[in-house]
Amino acid sequence: MSVEAVGTVRRGRGARKANRVAFDTTMLPALHRKLPLTEPMTPEQVEKIDAASMHILENVGVQFRDEIALADWKKAGAKVEGEMVYLDRHHVRELIATIPETFTYHARDPGKSLPFGRDHGMFIPMTGAPYLRDLEDERRNPTLDDLAMFHKLAHMLPAMHSSAHHIVEPYDHPISQRHLRITYSSMKHSDKTFMGMTTSPKNAEDVMDMCDILFGADFIDTHPVVTGNCNGNSPLVWDETMLGAMRAFCRRNQPVLCSPFVLGGANTPASVAPTVAQLNAEALSALAYTQVIRKGAPAIYGHYLSTVSMKSGAPMAGTPEISLMNFMIGQMARYYGVPWRTSNTLGGAKTFDAQAGYESAMTLNAVLMAGANYMWHSAGWNEAGMHCSTAKFIVDAEMCAMGYRMAEGVRWDDFDEALAAVADIGPGGHYLGHPHTLENFQRAFFMPEMFDNNSIEQWMAEGSVEITGRALNRAKDLLAAYEEPKLDEGVDEALRDYIARREREIPAADALNQEY
Amino acid sequence: MSVEAVGTVRRGRGARKANRVAFDTTMLPALHRKLPLTEPMTPEQVEKIDAASMHILENVGVQFRDEIALADWKKAGAKVEGEMVYLDRHHVRELIATIPETFTYHARDPGKSLPFGRDHGMFIPMTGAPYLRDLEDERRNPTLDDLAMFHKLAHMLPAMHSSAHHIVEPYDHPISQRHLRITYSSMKHSDKTFMGMTTSPKNAEDVMDMCDILFGADFIDTHPVVTGNCNGNSPLVWDETMLGAMRAFCRRNQPVLCSPFVLGGANTPASVAPTVAQLNAEALSALAYTQVIRKGAPAIYGHYLSTVSMKSGAPMAGTPEISLMNFMIGQMARYYGVPWRTSNTLGGAKTFDAQAGYESAMTLNAVLMAGANYMWHSAGWNEAGMHCSTAKFIVDAEMCAMGYRMAEGVRWDDFDEALAAVADIGPGGHYLGHPHTLENFQRAFFMPEMFDNNSIEQWMAEGSVEITGRALNRAKDLLAAYEEPKLDEGVDEALRDYIARREREIPAADALNQEY
Repeated sequence: MSVEAVGTVRRGRGARKANRVAFDTTMLPALHRKLPLTEPMTPEQVEKIDAASMHILENVGVQFRDEIALADWKKAGAKVEGEMVYLDRHHVRELIATIPETFTYHARDPGKSLPFGRDHGMFIPMTGAPYLRDLEDERRNPTLDDLAMFHKLAHMLPAMHSSAHHIVEPYDHPISQRHLRITYSSMKHSDKTFMGMTTSPKNAEDVMDMCDILFGADFIDTHPVVTGNCNGNSPLVWDETMLGAMRAFCRRNQPVLCSPFVLGGANTPASVAPTVAQLNAEALSALAYTQVIRKGAPAIYGHYLSTVSMKSGAPMAGTPEISLMNFMIGQMARYYGVPWRTSNTLGGAKTFDAQAGYESAMTLNAVLMAGANYMWHSAGWNEAGMHCSTAKFIVDAEMCAMGYRMAEGVRWDDFDEALAAVADIGPGGHYLGHPHTLENFQRAFFMPEMFDNNSIEQWMAEGSVEITGRALNRAKDLLAAYEEPKLDEGVDEALRDYIARREREIPAADALNQEY
Repeated sequence: MSVEAVGTVRRGRGARKANRVAFDTTMLPALHRKLPLTEPMTPEQVEKIDAASMHILENVGVQFRDEIALADWKKAGAKVEGEMVYLDRHHVRELIATIPETFTYHARDPGKSLPFGRDHGMFIPMTGAPYLRDLEDERRNPTLDDLAMFHKLAHMLPAMHSSAHHIVEPYDHPISQRHLRITYSSMKHSDKTFMGMTTSPKNAEDVMDMCDILFGADFIDTHPVVTGNCNGNSPLVWDETMLGAMRAFCRRNQPVLCSPFVLGGANTPASVAPTVAQLNAEALSALAYTQVIRKGAPAIYGHYLSTVSMKSGAPMAGTPEISLMNFMIGQMARYYGVPWRTSNTLGGAKTFDAQAGYESAMTLNAVLMAGANYMWHSAGWNEAGMHCSTAKFIVDAEMCAMGYRMAEGVRWDDFDEALAAVADIGPGGHYLGHPHTLENFQRAFFMPEMFDNNSIEQWMAEGSVEITGRALNRAKDLLAAYEEPKLDEGVDEALRDYIARREREIPAADALNQEY
């Protein structure tokens, strides 16, 4: 690409430094939606999906590859044959009825605790990336410092409601001990809500112990503070690791995402509505099990959702059927009165190019219009989750802030006043100096900072920087302005002591295990 | 950015050539929406906007800077004072009641004629760009050959329902004669519907004459074939050029877009709902005038919609308030029973970077969920309309095809059959070889061709080409495979004779006028 050069003045470090004070890092309150949701199914079609899912649960069955879960199900009165569990629809309904429709997520900073469920939504960064694209857009394996960087950014970006957990995989620490350092990083660098590792039942218990230290003994048994994710193996399988981690969370009253892992067309039928029926059966079976573990424990209807290219076998994102399935799953979750999680800003682009922008925005819109409560993977996701892009992290977070504004709906409080301005200005005038404009412009129209809307001449005069460069500059400026939300010294010491003890107890396995 | 290189095999011209036969260029039928629309206003709020707009029309008035229009309004019984016209709400309602809610757009190929209005939608490329980014992504002034290129691409891209008119401004032809060559190019290189120039009343009449030649005498008086756009000068002004062009179209029964040109916050109040009220008043005043010109003539509720950055004064796109206003305007147009136009895939990015992707996808989603009928600027728009990007043209068209699929809603016809597959496969299996999958995979999940969802290793082996490069390769391949939909020889000759005659009659002004 090229344009005639009209100037090469670049914004240097000095110019950026001068802007530092301008950042507003105040966290947005939990999204409270007022825009009507997109509901493609009639009530009859919702019941059709429900009936199909219940039929699957009763007749096809679900495999629980875990002896404790099988024993629990037997005790709860389910029909169990080998690893197969067959759930009666009345039993399922009775079990999921005790899942709280709403609860409060408690953060270290009580001012950042969040109402959750029904009309409320929250944005959580991506997690699990084995690579990052860093502050220079280099793709490489991440370290604990990189993880800390993302936790700091999540702490500062207003639309992010959580610091999540392993946004990137810290390869410079032994895999068997990694969950401890990840949890500590989430707790230390941000005072927002966070997620807890579910990589093994014991790891999940370590997270519970660390939450006890952070919030004080017994607090978490009555206050949700941390979210665990349990992926299903679609079709219709839950494995021992996930079920064990689920028990660790449920027993301590901490919410788990019950997440079938859907590769549409590969592990579900090649069709939208039947895929939703299968996914719904899978989610219901896990949601029901959370209540077998602990009646009344918070639990979240989840899923990871992609469709598979029948040409290459690759997972796809931003496609129309993913939007449709999100809309439908939202209807199902609301039908059952259970909060739900989906995945936001997904995509398969290898760089932060226009593909990444299209994919992420398509998903963001679907997720918002579907009414999801727990919008995971809301910043940084790229390359089908293989890397977290620092640039994209910044821009996605601003996109979430824009989506937030859209989902809040239309303001009417200044309607009459503004109409008076129309009469004042009259035909052919302009509003820029009118008192109503001066009073309202800051809140009237969102002014994205990562989109460049200047003329090409101005843009070239500022160095012809595309959005990747602008976002990386912003990330650097934010990090330079980062102020750590200090942990209580005693708590910090107790956490570090706990980690030290556990690291002595847990073998480091093969030193630095680079595989994940 | 960088990744470790694993290969450098590039897809060359030969590889592309081998793929040529694979393109499906069959035009999609007119979109028939089944997905529920997003309607943020209650019926009472719709009436509140209506009442506010009618109040503006009755009390603030609209300026018609055109003597013929003022005389027409006097004759029609409106209150006229100088250039100000005050329209009674009952009079407005009576006038707009005769605008057809639906009609058929007739194309040169009758197989490409389109039902229009209510649940039907069509995608039209961007127009009016003074620059293009060409097949090498160079930004430069366009020529007639460049315009022909875009008309050829619009002809071949399935989701494009129109070849539009001056997608780019052909700078190699005198401005005073340009409309003739533009119209000919639309007619010759594509047999889809198209747009007609409204740059002056006389130019609009030339377009009507050329349509008479293309479709045969008298055909157009009873068949809409070409769309004209008339921009308003917000707030509340219509000028002589636009009104004269409007008359040329309406008198011959050709649809005009009555398009207030909104820079929210600059020429409207800094608030969403009042901006819609002003825009609605402006649109209603022009829609009413179309029926003064010719009762029963087709007319389309239109607008160009942006919000203005209060920091820089620059127009913004993809912002939440633009989505909200689109949703609301859709409700107003349906309240009046008039088809409506909006602008799709807008954005202010200078290159085809991630900003362009985000902006365009945000707008596309809003436009689809708002239920727009005439989705203009659906391909190529970038840099706030200053350039048409060839790469973006290709990708936008695929995005429209995906949006089309989403807006069609959910299929249920194979539901029972696919559920039987769930029972067949059972827990832990996969669906790739199942007969239902083999029968359905091609239509089940959209497989975007411009998104790369392969692994990074595969992507690097294919040359690490970002979406801009892939789209430009696709454009080259499409153009190599282009087959002209031949005009009848007599018609072609008559058109060329007409142009030759008019070019003798119209002074070429200052030779090649490079200003527009």
